[in-house]
Amino acid sequence: MTGMSAQSTAPAPFTADDYQGRMARAASAAAAAGLAGLLVAPGPDLVWLTGYRPTADTERLTLLVIVPDQDPVLVVPTLEAGDAAHAPGAPALTLRDWRDGQDPYAAVPLTGTDGRYGISDNAWAMHLLGLQRRAPATSYAALSEALPMLRAVKDDAELGRLTAAGAAADAAYQEIKQVAFEGRRETDIAGDLARLLRRFGHAQVDFTVVGSGPNGADPHHEAGERIVQQGDMVVLDFGGLMHGYGSDTTRTVHVGEPSDEERRVHEVVREAQQRAVEAVRPGAACQDIDRAAREVITQAGYGDRFIHRTGHGIGVTTHEPPYMIEGERQPLVPGMCFSVEPGIYLPGRFGVRIEDIVTVTEDGARRLNNTPRELAVVH
Amino acid sequence: MTGMSAQSTAPAPFTADDYQGRMARAASAAAAAGLAGLLVAPGPDLVWLTGYRPTADTERLTLLVIVPDQDPVLVVPTLEAGDAAHAPGAPALTLRDWRDGQDPYAAVPLTGTDGRYGISDNAWAMHLLGLQRRAPATSYAALSEALPMLRAVKDDAELGRLTAAGAAADAAYQEIKQVAFEGRRETDIAGDLARLLRRFGHAQVDFTVVGSGPNGADPHHEAGERIVQQGDMVVLDFGGLMHGYGSDTTRTVHVGEPSDEERRVHEVVREAQQRAVEAVRPGAACQDIDRAAREVITQAGYGDRFIHRTGHGIGVTTHEPPYMIEGERQPLVPGMCFSVEPGIYLPGRFGVRIEDIVTVTEDGARRLNNTPRELAVVH
Repeated sequence: MTGMSAQSTAPAPFTADDYQGRMARAASAAAAAGLAGLLVAPGPDLVWLTGYRPTADTERLTLLVIVPDQDPVLVVPTLEAGDAAHAPGAPALTLRDWRDGQDPYAAVPLTGTDGRYGISDNAWAMHLLGLQRRAPATSYAALSEALPMLRAVKDDAELGRLTAAGAAADAAYQEIKQVAFEGRRETDIAGDLARLLRRFGHAQVDFTVVGSGPNGADPHHEAGERIVQQGDMVVLDFGGLMHGYGSDTTRTVHVGEPSDEERRVHEVVREAQQRAVEAVRPGAACQDIDRAAREVITQAGYGDRFIHRTGHGIGVTTHEPPYMIEGERQPLVPGMCFSVEPGIYLPGRFGVRIEDIVTVTEDGARRLNNTPRELAVVH
Repeated sequence: MTGMSAQSTAPAPFTADDYQGRMARAASAAAAAGLAGLLVAPGPDLVWLTGYRPTADTERLTLLVIVPDQDPVLVVPTLEAGDAAHAPGAPALTLRDWRDGQDPYAAVPLTGTDGRYGISDNAWAMHLLGLQRRAPATSYAALSEALPMLRAVKDDAELGRLTAAGAAADAAYQEIKQVAFEGRRETDIAGDLARLLRRFGHAQVDFTVVGSGPNGADPHHEAGERIVQQGDMVVLDFGGLMHGYGSDTTRTVHVGEPSDEERRVHEVVREAQQRAVEAVRPGAACQDIDRAAREVITQAGYGDRFIHRTGHGIGVTTHEPPYMIEGERQPLVPGMCFSVEPGIYLPGRFGVRIEDIVTVTEDGARRLNNTPRELAVVH
């Protein structure tokens, strides 16, 4: 893996046909789930279905309406109709605009008055209230509940982007091992990571966790003023968006020579991560992946120190369904992409986490992160 | 006005007492409006009431519950409870956390099961659905509809911040007149404006409109690749946040000597803006301000070229109630702060807009932007 190979040329943009295909699949999924339609708000759902991202997410209603056997309709404020018409998915839908002073909810083509609709999780409450008032007999379900797997299975073009984002994150990791750790602030190293992600092609950096020493024992820690010291374990968890798709990888490094205990804990996590990746195959349940990792850590005596789920999906966002967590029985399907990231957290001392993005193949898993998972020594 | 005077020292932070006062006023307003309580989501409402801004606005429920005659409760994910406890308003409320796997809606202390609640406009639809499912007899109204003036009247400390933000924007305008316009891209000048706003103390730049020549005739235009030319009118509309409060000012400049028509149109807008500011006084209706500006422009024969409302409120956001628009009968109250920004837009040719933030005083208005409103010539 070299930096240059990660700086691949931009992929061919998604076409109106691509978006038409996604909207058609969404309509089929809605029908199969017994929904009258889908109401899609600005954010990841709308970007995925149409390529459209309004300049700002405001109180003015923008809503994509997908109803089985009808053409999709994008309701937009008149002021933004020009922008919306230039969205890559616009040729595959009908624009319907409403002006300031008009009732925007009257422009939403709900079919019938008592259907049940899936609505984007992050649609504004004021808009849901407007729809409920206009059509009191309709009912609504959050899209992540009604159709949790809507965006979960990636096609080849999406997989290509996720692969490139993973390669870029890997290139950033290979470079970050060369910088000075000892004597610098966590935030300085986080800044290095952000610059590297951008250098290798990321348009957006979502997180750059640098958890040194005891800070590594808090999986919610980002990066702070602590000065990294000789003898520290350092959790590095970083990612963002490249060509519209996400990266997310974690490696734990050590400043100078690790102790036997540090090596042992790291090896338990490495083994847990390996077993979990080996458990990935079509038909396995999401919770099986969590169990595979947890079993290794529990048998090593650290079960109560693995305090989060094993993974989450990734696509046009860096955190989305499916979730690898106990109780999630969703079967894995080829094309799903998600993180596998077990960890052990020893409060007041140190933490270890190892994370790769994997995609489900016809007979197992393929990792999109491929840097060494052995404990690396930095300086 | 010099740049240095705008670089004032940071104001004293708001205290827990300040936030307690705001939450108490919000509770009183809720009771007066017949609401059982207020449900406040991350965003401007929550920042204003508590000073708390979660690291990210995610699917995990964060919700402030304000019920008259009860202590406010902030429901937060356990992972974020530590951050929330450090919010400046935290001492004035009770934190209640919920863990992954628990029902977050069970943690929301709705009083009774059939009350009517005001909920932040931008609360997530999935959370409103969760509340509706948990307490089916409750009902909800968007906060901007139920209590549109909740944040509209600013206290002295807020007014001080808005005044400082206005002075910083004024300093940026005085400097931008010195840069080269002719031969440079709109986006270059927009970049200059953003740098100047930051130099004079803004932490966040929300918009830097540079509408040259025909682009100025589109009030929705931001800044593009067009090269500014000799003889162009150029609309400059810019603002952002400084110490948590907004600026928003517009001046229209001319590259080289203006024509008689350009001078005349500019003078009509200047006169309209002046009349509208003179109409501001306690008890006047919001729509009166719009009418005052519109009357001048209509009498000059450009009524159909003034295609937007006259103004909007400003505070912890750069656009919020009250709105100066026909049909808005809300009376003005001392301490309200809003823009007065009439314009004339001649499609394919040029546009003119002039905008100041004003605050309502005991007997009229005070401008928070004080740069000359005459047509300035730039080079």
